[in-house]
Amino acid sequence: MKATGVVVEYNPFHNGHYYHLQETKKQTNADCVIAVMSGNFLQRGEPALLSKWKRTKMALLGGADIVIELPYAFATSHAPRFAFGSIFLLQALGAESFCFGSESGDISVFTKTHDSLDSQQADYQLNIRNVMSDGLSYPAAAAKAFEALNTPLPLDLSKPNNILGFEYIRASRELGNVLKPLTIKRKNADYHDVVLGKGNIASATAIREALFSKDLSKAENYMPAFTYDLMVEDQQEKGTLMNWERFFPLLRYQLLSSSPSEINSYYEVEEGLEYRMIEAIKSSDSFNTFMTLLKTKRYTWTRLQRACLHVLNKIKKEEMHQLLETPPAYIRVLGMTEKGQKYLSSVKKSLEFPLVTTVSKHDLPGLRMEARTSLVYAQGALVNKLSAEKEEFNTPPVIVK
Amino acid sequence: MKATGVVVEYNPFHNGHYYHLQETKKQTNADCVIAVMSGNFLQRGEPALLSKWKRTKMALLGGADIVIELPYAFATSHAPRFAFGSIFLLQALGAESFCFGSESGDISVFTKTHDSLDSQQADYQLNIRNVMSDGLSYPAAAAKAFEALNTPLPLDLSKPNNILGFEYIRASRELGNVLKPLTIKRKNADYHDVVLGKGNIASATAIREALFSKDLSKAENYMPAFTYDLMVEDQQEKGTLMNWERFFPLLRYQLLSSSPSEINSYYEVEEGLEYRMIEAIKSSDSFNTFMTLLKTKRYTWTRLQRACLHVLNKIKKEEMHQLLETPPAYIRVLGMTEKGQKYLSSVKKSLEFPLVTTVSKHDLPGLRMEARTSLVYAQGALVNKLSAEKEEFNTPPVIVK
Repeated sequence: MKATGVVVEYNPFHNGHYYHLQETKKQTNADCVIAVMSGNFLQRGEPALLSKWKRTKMALLGGADIVIELPYAFATSHAPRFAFGSIFLLQALGAESFCFGSESGDISVFTKTHDSLDSQQADYQLNIRNVMSDGLSYPAAAAKAFEALNTPLPLDLSKPNNILGFEYIRASRELGNVLKPLTIKRKNADYHDVVLGKGNIASATAIREALFSKDLSKAENYMPAFTYDLMVEDQQEKGTLMNWERFFPLLRYQLLSSSPSEINSYYEVEEGLEYRMIEAIKSSDSFNTFMTLLKTKRYTWTRLQRACLHVLNKIKKEEMHQLLETPPAYIRVLGMTEKGQKYLSSVKKSLEFPLVTTVSKHDLPGLRMEARTSLVYAQGALVNKLSAEKEEFNTPPVIVK
Repeated sequence: MKATGVVVEYNPFHNGHYYHLQETKKQTNADCVIAVMSGNFLQRGEPALLSKWKRTKMALLGGADIVIELPYAFATSHAPRFAFGSIFLLQALGAESFCFGSESGDISVFTKTHDSLDSQQADYQLNIRNVMSDGLSYPAAAAKAFEALNTPLPLDLSKPNNILGFEYIRASRELGNVLKPLTIKRKNADYHDVVLGKGNIASATAIREALFSKDLSKAENYMPAFTYDLMVEDQQEKGTLMNWERFFPLLRYQLLSSSPSEINSYYEVEEGLEYRMIEAIKSSDSFNTFMTLLKTKRYTWTRLQRACLHVLNKIKKEEMHQLLETPPAYIRVLGMTEKGQKYLSSVKKSLEFPLVTTVSKHDLPGLRMEARTSLVYAQGALVNKLSAEKEEFNTPPVIVK
């Protein structure tokens, strides 16, 4: 059997994702699509709107055959590590290719960009060192450094999905260039669009905005019916869809009851950010106000949200470094179709890493972090908190026939 | 000017407390009554029903002239340390006597008990070691050890106010027996009464029960009108009266996001209690359920509540030991009448400890702990959390003319 891979968050699964999965199958002619999906917390430093199990079900109903979990450490890391963890897992599971959505839509542009960059590596490193000293955030500095190269890169690296794609390919090259990269042009929606468009494809950001404007149904046109139903179901079970505001009382308590050195011990809290956090929390009655007070030119909003996430989850620098230094140490299956099941049986014996379907049967640092952060995630529930806490441990992989 | 002292929590101030203050003045003929009062958290390991400022005002309206704060470390400690901190502060402020309510009501019984115990010290120590090995809680073991003495003690040490009085006198003796002890028989209410009686005096426990049965007015008969009004005012400002349930989501989050060794680093978490806590929290959806699951023969309810309080406030063993090893290092004035003000002016120059009226002007470990725990206390507020957080730092001493 031939497998291809996609890297996803599905927060939530919408028509654009559906299109991506269908196109991926068409272009690769694969028998099986493996989706590497983030769990409770996402790369932008946010809690997922709804549970990983519901999002897994969406993925399977929408065309994926296997959903595996990108561990917390990688899922909440900056783009290079996020990409590395994801591509590593796809390769470990024997995929032959991977396919990502991008603004560019032309894979040769990505390849040429990497080739060009390889030949200008020294210049690039010099440029980036120069512009970093201006106090710019890393992404802004990287963009400037690219711009300043003698031979301009063919890829527009100001676009978020182009950046991610660029990192996937870099990771894959580091891992021996085993997987064939493919890209699909994103349709009709810009990543950052916040107003719902007129077509039936809108960005996840725009959909989330609509969801939190108190009217779930506003977003209904932009997603398959199963997404909408699963979202309503999750909201009923927990009394809410999750967002940062749900966790703000806990973050606030954590910051106010911790010493600066304790806060500094958490991952991504650097350069005195702990003092800014302690100062900002004193006059913030919402997460949004807090973030606005925290924001400076040096840090992106995403970077600051991730730091907040690690404070909330009490993720120490050392434990995060240890997990990020090496590739993911296990493959956790969140769900599969019958075809996916068949694929897993066929590769099972040749896997170099444990295939995890029941977390309680394994004792691994990455899974322990997943368990801890899942318990924190469950605290966002307004009702049935106890059952939300048990989800991580008691839910068997989702099977869709 | 002649001052006497009382040790109080006023949670809330009721008719029995009023009677105690009037009788204290009568019996001592003092010009000035100094009340040492616990702040946000109390000896039974509970948050105070309402703010220390409102309770200070109650004390002043009810007959006290000066209210000073018993620091967190002493206020939430077991009876011997609680008593030591309180008596020490009264002595430091130049009181000549102190007067406590007791079930016994006869000071000579207390004195004789201490004399008798002094002469049987060796036997008592032996007894207590013997019964402790049966796995009894310390208070139960102490009671058994008392019982087993050759000459029985004249004081009934199964009564909670007798025990406290016994500890006040022990502390005073340790401090050179400078203060004259007096006691007043408690009227009409047993400490543990949970049903409101028919007279106009009821125990604070019974009053709290009535308050949380959703009807503040049920308790109205048992307290002065100013208590009732201040309580309604505080409830309106914060959207709630405080109790443990208000803080349970934070305790739950703290326990679920901490490692066993982290939990064990907090004061009064001993002998594997951290594992019992982690286990019990998994099936508790209220503080009351949690406590019920935690309870064993070895620990009293109070002892366990105190351990929970230190987890909530993240009070480490070392910092608590450091603060408890020495007497309180400052005298913090929460409020005064004009008479109290005059008294303070008269003794000010001879004080050996800083007199604190503005916390931000002093940097002392005890005050830092007060500030941290006040911020946690403010998290219980349902509305106006930001102003609740500022109370500790911005409120000047309450002045009642």
